[in-house]
Amino acid sequence: MPELRYDVFRVRWTVISTERGRRPSDYVVAKEEIKSGVCPFCYGHEHTTPPEIFVIGPKDRQPNTPGWDVRVVSNKFPALRIEGELRREATGLFDKISGIGAHEVIIETPEHDKSLADLSIEQIQKVLIAYRERLRDLRKDLRIRYTLVFKNYGREAGASLSHPHSQLIATPMIPTVVVTELRSSKDHYLAKERCLLCDIINQELQFGSRVVLERDGYLVWEPFAASFPFETWLIPKRHLHDFALLDDQELGILASVLKEMLLRIKVVLNDPPFNMVLHTAPSPHTRPGRADYWSTIEYDYHWHIELIPRITKIAGFEWGSGLYINPTPPEESVIYLREAEITF
Amino acid sequence: MPELRYDVFRVRWTVISTERGRRPSDYVVAKEEIKSGVCPFCYGHEHTTPPEIFVIGPKDRQPNTPGWDVRVVSNKFPALRIEGELRREATGLFDKISGIGAHEVIIETPEHDKSLADLSIEQIQKVLIAYRERLRDLRKDLRIRYTLVFKNYGREAGASLSHPHSQLIATPMIPTVVVTELRSSKDHYLAKERCLLCDIINQELQFGSRVVLERDGYLVWEPFAASFPFETWLIPKRHLHDFALLDDQELGILASVLKEMLLRIKVVLNDPPFNMVLHTAPSPHTRPGRADYWSTIEYDYHWHIELIPRITKIAGFEWGSGLYINPTPPEESVIYLREAEITF
Repeated sequence: MPELRYDVFRVRWTVISTERGRRPSDYVVAKEEIKSGVCPFCYGHEHTTPPEIFVIGPKDRQPNTPGWDVRVVSNKFPALRIEGELRREATGLFDKISGIGAHEVIIETPEHDKSLADLSIEQIQKVLIAYRERLRDLRKDLRIRYTLVFKNYGREAGASLSHPHSQLIATPMIPTVVVTELRSSKDHYLAKERCLLCDIINQELQFGSRVVLERDGYLVWEPFAASFPFETWLIPKRHLHDFALLDDQELGILASVLKEMLLRIKVVLNDPPFNMVLHTAPSPHTRPGRADYWSTIEYDYHWHIELIPRITKIAGFEWGSGLYINPTPPEESVIYLREAEITF
Repeated sequence: MPELRYDVFRVRWTVISTERGRRPSDYVVAKEEIKSGVCPFCYGHEHTTPPEIFVIGPKDRQPNTPGWDVRVVSNKFPALRIEGELRREATGLFDKISGIGAHEVIIETPEHDKSLADLSIEQIQKVLIAYRERLRDLRKDLRIRYTLVFKNYGREAGASLSHPHSQLIATPMIPTVVVTELRSSKDHYLAKERCLLCDIINQELQFGSRVVLERDGYLVWEPFAASFPFETWLIPKRHLHDFALLDDQELGILASVLKEMLLRIKVVLNDPPFNMVLHTAPSPHTRPGRADYWSTIEYDYHWHIELIPRITKIAGFEWGSGLYINPTPPEESVIYLREAEITF
């Protein structure tokens, strides 16, 4: 019998459609080829991208030349821009904000044909350091309220270039989905003085039926009301609201857990297209003037990574209802992920 | 300069990315072929679908035989089912409802190769009558709280069969997106004693810059904060909360306006894949026990149809933020739709 499950953190329902119960091999994704040609993210083509904003590499290297390990540049076709004046205005019922923000690309490696899962732990650590440094830097801009780091892997997941890369978009408001998570966390905290995601983690560890792996202070699991088949989350077991507070060593440990999670997804679903997002606390200066609103954020929010393989279609029902239909219960998908044979 | 626009009805922001400003011909959708083979929705194959639930056709016709004009059957792989007991239960923090509901297919015509836009106004009227009758009938089931009618057209929009059809899914709770619309409408009404969508319509008519067409009591327009390029809405100018209250003659007029809207989309975007949803008031019996909550629904909610062409990808940013990036401002897309040459 199918069931509807409620996500108390994201405040929405999912249909877990057990009768359609599907194994990994039942998901066939027609993989569209990404056109190649000259890759702007490869060594020697640094001049074809906007100038670099941040780089990890040898100290004696000239900017915008080869030799880097991780390179961050502006998106050539940015959705939002850093230049200009932030204006908030209304015309009658209609409200708008000028498109101030940032849209950057984190080039994860010089190696064109690798994927994030294949990189060494040290290299993934460098990618995570780049995430952290960009978050810290963008928070200095008082116009910016939130920075979302995300990754589109594969054409079906929205990637237009195959060279391994992540992106970030910084916005002058806190995005809807993050506001929902912040609110549910705060409501829970105000009632109980406990973090909602800490409570969920404890319960998941007790049940055990949705846990993929637990090591080095991290939990990888399939959420109870997973919206997509094989949707997988990674979270620190220790309460921490902000990813940007992690030091290099901690990011090294995270890199190892993230690599294992990515490898398990890759093996089980035959290298599927996926989206990955980093949810962390908003910029601290979103609080002045609304001090009361996010005043408990250190205690109530809990940073985490969400990954969704893009192996089902988002169609009219999902759009019109906000409900997703997941044909593989997380208790089943988790078994495949646990049992996957991977090599580090 | 790009801008962020707020949708006061759907309570979310959209990035209108003017610098990426794109014309219809810039959207190239790789159309996946839908596998043919024996079509279960064609005349003569009535026995290959679940038995019919509702039909429009000659009175002397035997059930589940050819001769029908519009035919409604259960989905062969239903996401939710009518059989079983409705149970709501919690385990710790986790909540669930048994998967009671309905999942039906409205076969719009016996003609396999037509699309909804190509059907005669009379035939589209019959499709709309089928929508209405199924809404009315499903509301008799006191376990059901909402019925969402939707259409996936084209493989990229989630259709798995090419024979013209719509679907409906009835749920034992009101879906998230509908709850958001109901709440914003009610809040507006409580403050102002006016319907929010009535106010938006009036403002759009005043501005005029996003209006596609206005005739026979209906408005077709691109919303101010359209989440997708060429997102188009259809709404009655007269306040009415519930589509199911329309009589046959009124559905005939609606059929004509809907056909024109579909034809304009088809001509401008070269027969694109699309999703369409009907948003109407929930079942009246959602109110007992929460009488106060939806007590003003006749005055504050306003039924409408939303259509989104599926010509852009939904990727990590959209998933992680709830924000959409629309590369064509509605004020530009509307010009193409207005100027399209169509023949009725």
